[in-house]
Amino acid sequence: MEFESFLTSLATSFLIFVVLMSLFSWLSRKQGNTVVYYPNRILKGMDPWDGGSRTRNPIAWIREALSSTEQDIINMSGVDTAVYFVFLSTVLGILVLSGIILLPLLLPLAATDDGGKIVHARTNTTINELDKISMANIEKRSPRLWAFLVATYWVSFVTYLLLWKAYKHVSELRSQALMSPEVKSEQFAILVRDLPGVPEGQTRKEQVDSYFTTIYPDTFYRSVVITDNKEVHKIWEELEGYRKKLSHAEAVYAGSKTTANPEGTKPTTKTGLLGLIGEKVDSIQYYNDKINELIPKLEAEQKVTLREKQKGAALVFFNNRVTAASAAQSLHAPMVDTWTVTGAPEPRQLLWSNLTIKFFGRIIRQYAVYIFVALMILFYMIPISFISALTTLPKLQKALPFLKPIVEIAPIRTVLEAYLPQIALIVFLALLPKLLLFLSKTEGIPSQSHAVRAASGKYFYFIVLNVFIGVTITGTLFGTLKTIQNDINGIVGLLAKSLPGNATFFLTFVALKFFVGYGLELSRLVPLIIYHIKRKYLCKTEAELKDAWFPGDLSYATRVPSDMLIITITFCYSVIAPLIIPFGVLYFGFGWLVLRNQALKVYVPSYESYGQMWPHLHSRLIAALLLYQLTMAGFFGVMEFMFAPFMIPLPIISLIFEFVCREKFYRFFQHPALEPASKEIKETPNMEQIFRSYIPPYLNYEKADDEQFEDALSQVSKTGSTV
Amino acid sequence: MEFESFLTSLATSFLIFVVLMSLFSWLSRKQGNTVVYYPNRILKGMDPWDGGSRTRNPIAWIREALSSTEQDIINMSGVDTAVYFVFLSTVLGILVLSGIILLPLLLPLAATDDGGKIVHARTNTTINELDKISMANIEKRSPRLWAFLVATYWVSFVTYLLLWKAYKHVSELRSQALMSPEVKSEQFAILVRDLPGVPEGQTRKEQVDSYFTTIYPDTFYRSVVITDNKEVHKIWEELEGYRKKLSHAEAVYAGSKTTANPEGTKPTTKTGLLGLIGEKVDSIQYYNDKINELIPKLEAEQKVTLREKQKGAALVFFNNRVTAASAAQSLHAPMVDTWTVTGAPEPRQLLWSNLTIKFFGRIIRQYAVYIFVALMILFYMIPISFISALTTLPKLQKALPFLKPIVEIAPIRTVLEAYLPQIALIVFLALLPKLLLFLSKTEGIPSQSHAVRAASGKYFYFIVLNVFIGVTITGTLFGTLKTIQNDINGIVGLLAKSLPGNATFFLTFVALKFFVGYGLELSRLVPLIIYHIKRKYLCKTEAELKDAWFPGDLSYATRVPSDMLIITITFCYSVIAPLIIPFGVLYFGFGWLVLRNQALKVYVPSYESYGQMWPHLHSRLIAALLLYQLTMAGFFGVMEFMFAPFMIPLPIISLIFEFVCREKFYRFFQHPALEPASKEIKETPNMEQIFRSYIPPYLNYEKADDEQFEDALSQVSKTGSTV
Repeated sequence: MEFESFLTSLATSFLIFVVLMSLFSWLSRKQGNTVVYYPNRILKGMDPWDGGSRTRNPIAWIREALSSTEQDIINMSGVDTAVYFVFLSTVLGILVLSGIILLPLLLPLAATDDGGKIVHARTNTTINELDKISMANIEKRSPRLWAFLVATYWVSFVTYLLLWKAYKHVSELRSQALMSPEVKSEQFAILVRDLPGVPEGQTRKEQVDSYFTTIYPDTFYRSVVITDNKEVHKIWEELEGYRKKLSHAEAVYAGSKTTANPEGTKPTTKTGLLGLIGEKVDSIQYYNDKINELIPKLEAEQKVTLREKQKGAALVFFNNRVTAASAAQSLHAPMVDTWTVTGAPEPRQLLWSNLTIKFFGRIIRQYAVYIFVALMILFYMIPISFISALTTLPKLQKALPFLKPIVEIAPIRTVLEAYLPQIALIVFLALLPKLLLFLSKTEGIPSQSHAVRAASGKYFYFIVLNVFIGVTITGTLFGTLKTIQNDINGIVGLLAKSLPGNATFFLTFVALKFFVGYGLELSRLVPLIIYHIKRKYLCKTEAELKDAWFPGDLSYATRVPSDMLIITITFCYSVIAPLIIPFGVLYFGFGWLVLRNQALKVYVPSYESYGQMWPHLHSRLIAALLLYQLTMAGFFGVMEFMFAPFMIPLPIISLIFEFVCREKFYRFFQHPALEPASKEIKETPNMEQIFRSYIPPYLNYEKADDEQFEDALSQVSKTGSTV
Repeated sequence: MEFESFLTSLATSFLIFVVLMSLFSWLSRKQGNTVVYYPNRILKGMDPWDGGSRTRNPIAWIREALSSTEQDIINMSGVDTAVYFVFLSTVLGILVLSGIILLPLLLPLAATDDGGKIVHARTNTTINELDKISMANIEKRSPRLWAFLVATYWVSFVTYLLLWKAYKHVSELRSQALMSPEVKSEQFAILVRDLPGVPEGQTRKEQVDSYFTTIYPDTFYRSVVITDNKEVHKIWEELEGYRKKLSHAEAVYAGSKTTANPEGTKPTTKTGLLGLIGEKVDSIQYYNDKINELIPKLEAEQKVTLREKQKGAALVFFNNRVTAASAAQSLHAPMVDTWTVTGAPEPRQLLWSNLTIKFFGRIIRQYAVYIFVALMILFYMIPISFISALTTLPKLQKALPFLKPIVEIAPIRTVLEAYLPQIALIVFLALLPKLLLFLSKTEGIPSQSHAVRAASGKYFYFIVLNVFIGVTITGTLFGTLKTIQNDINGIVGLLAKSLPGNATFFLTFVALKFFVGYGLELSRLVPLIIYHIKRKYLCKTEAELKDAWFPGDLSYATRVPSDMLIITITFCYSVIAPLIIPFGVLYFGFGWLVLRNQALKVYVPSYESYGQMWPHLHSRLIAALLLYQLTMAGFFGVMEFMFAPFMIPLPIISLIFEFVCREKFYRFFQHPALEPASKEIKETPNMEQIFRSYIPPYLNYEKADDEQFEDALSQVSKTGSTV
């Protein structure tokens, strides 16, 4: 990429960013848009603008974001979000501290050397203006390389220091959250899986109850046996669908009653596929019939499920937190693969259908998924190389000749040249997350938050291997793809050699991410447009309207790997082309500000795992650091620097650092510690309510208040053995 | 080694065995020897011969050993011993089942092939009679190799099957022991280490008590803060030493009162070094003075220790087993390296001085010891090669010319030729265990049983690497030692090539082990002689006499690795030279019988770990099996067998088998499960007694009954903060 394209790309990105910011200032002040820009506050029953300024100019919202405290974030968006901000500010801190030393030290050193020029003159390649202030401009074996080596150490040690502080801080946050005096259902429950066969003359429930009563005579409250809910859930979904359609039809009918037509027009529907074919009937009548038909079916299926579809897993409730915390991590049965316990996830994030997968089944699934993902990561390399090659403008022009007249126009050409490869990359990356989340759930993980972490981890490896390493190596060497050595040792050296050539590409990529990415994030243009279209043409009822503006969560499964990619890029280029550091700072600085606003006002977390994401973030940061250190070691080798072996201790220190952190902090993120759990609770927990919170809505549908569900459950205990 | 030497060696071994058996039959019937042959029964207050036959002829004791049940072993010698017998019988089972198939299948196949003869004829080496019935006699690329390949699979699957059954059985034994209605102190206690700094205004004891009272308000009983007992222990040892000397002197004095000399001769001693130099004084007076001098010193030191030498660790007692079992495996503090808990070992096996080593200190020590041991294992290779080379007779004769006249005598020459290398090996192996146990204790392990396991593990690797692999490779190739390749891949092939040549050596080695080793074991000649010498010349008091005959335990730290060496040898040769199998069967068969007798009548276990040795035995057995499978894969390669790749699945299956066993069973051997702990106990536990059992004798010396110790402890709580 030429220097001109680079500047054009930067300028365009910035322009888009300014436009999006202005749009945000203007749109967010309109009354009709509050549900898009303040859904989190509205759902919490707060006034959208309360306390804050109604003016949404940049100074106003940035001041608001900056003045918000960590406690505000925890109150509005939970511990997980606060932990994500610890991550953002830690990375920001690392980059700022690195930049303060690296920029004034390395840029002058690189700019005043002429090694690059000499090399380039010899090899006849064009000289890039950016290369002049990067390590590409340093002569081989130059003593100036000492400064670059020291810089690598500086970045590493800054990272260790800030990560250590962050881990401590997050531990503290988690501990505070777990000792909170509020009653939280999941702190009183454990999940028991792999129950052995039911003994003769006992029901499943009796088996579980008698087992836990013996071990915890004073603290056991009751249990819920996990059932196979597939069928009942299907019926319930169908019923709920008809209910929604019914209220929609009623709203349409009510809306059609104008003064001209006081009777209104009864809406009609077709009974066939998707309401498109078949007999035309009165909608309200039809949906009412369907609902009346399904209710007894659901009730019957509920009873059958509770009585006959019991599986070998259960939720067990205790009347105090310490016992639950202790039970969640203690070995119960001598056979480790029976009566396996874990802490219960929150009711809302329990993956009900995964609970009944057996011990070794889970292990086998896990390995099968790992192998599958590993293969996928390795063989996606091939399509991505093709995409990189295809998306150069001349090739595109050749492939799609009808584009020629457009492409010939000079400014468009420049823009396209600047953006095409990046856009191809971003679109490509958007395809994967759903598949990875699905695969993670297939592993048999019992909670949504854990599945998200697992998906995020897979995506991280994918993104680093295929985007970073893939683009770097295959991008540079596309003409000579076959020269890529197969052995892994060669790759580090190859990567080191290829990095300088791709600096501009990644600078553009990072700038695009923060200008356009965070601009879109803040302005919420896409959700706004979708909301207004739905509101105008589709939504008739209040519930439908709420569905239309209901915000998502921060979606860590994709957000975290994207951040990690930026970190990996910034780390790896920090010493080779220190100009990347300000770009990284801007990415994480903007990110912090924009997401602070979004966390306080927009997003609603879909689960709370009390910071269990942190160890995941931590170890991936260390992985990025390791990759950086290895690459730099390779790079000093390529530069034929005599003292390159001084790089050897760094990866070892990183591994020791990771080991020490894991030993010191990790176990607390796997299990609840007893000390925080033993803190006093505000009120005596309402055990009945805790227990009920774990019953899915389709099992005690509309009967939460009467005794039928209770009866059905206790009936199971009594009659189950005769079934 | 020639065939003749081999037969001579076998015959001699057998002769020694017969002599030792006869000696046992004769000596064990004598009344004066009962303390040597029945100490375990005597210490339990049982009649030595009760129930059993007084005649100790082979038939009698073997019948007794065979008719004893597992429960007898548990009653007389504990669960650990029973688990060791499970190990012996499992290995015996594996070898018997292997032999049943392998001997009739492989011996005829080998004997009727002439490949070996051809090869030997070509290479001009002598043909060994034993080689004719081993794989050495099979022609390269022969289809007969299929049988050998199938045999390898057979041995492996028999091993999996029996190990699986054994692991289940041992789990059951452990479970039974832990749910026993007997009150056992260690089931009510946990060990807490890495206490954080004492908060202002609290004593260490208050800190511990308040922490555990908060978490376990109903079940916490009390705590003991670990103190630095080095000084007090030293004084106590000194005092005990003088007490023993005093009673010895008194006995000597009483003994000297004959009718001729009714006053008796007062014994004297010298006050200097070892009682050899210095002033001559009246012993009784001197020791009494010393004792009276030390008692107040001890008492003062006890108080100082309890008040001022408190360290950051404590024993915590609970009033029920379930809480203790659960507390021992739960994370207590959010910082994982503080308040770390483990189950308390038995009082008698607590390594008091290791308890105060900090979390990361333990990890560092562990790795330091691992690295040191690894280096030691690798570099012992050099001395052992020299020993192997030195101990051939011609070389010995050259080095020590004065041996010449003896060595020239033909029968002596044959015997020496047969035994010299083996004796050198055995002596050499006897040097190491103490060092390894010391190193294992240096790791910071809190219990004796764990230290023994750690030492046994190290010894296993030492023995397999240096004796088995070392002797095989360097033994064969001593003249061309430099041809040993440095890369590990080469070693498997080299091992495979060298194995057949060493078959006779190892056959002799195994025979020596079981005939002479178990012969000595059963006859207890050495302890008998030492006892009688001591009794006659040294012992004057009852206590000294008891010390003289007090038996050891089974000393697993050396016994297990020796057994493992035999298993490794037998496995590795089972297919190559199936004749080794009967030798292995004899080793484990004799072993079982002899040790059964010794466990019931002689040895007194020095600790009880409820079978925690088993996973250690199991995984080392698998390691031996893996080595066997890899060697065989290499061997089929050396034989240029086309279907050698069919060996590849075997090591993978072994690894999966080990993984599954570890997942299914291992955690129960690390932690007590709650289910067995929740079984009812016979009587309400006497908590005071449980608590006292953990106070070392030198801390409440002679005051177990009065309240002083209690006072000192409670005083600590009250006044400690002002110290």
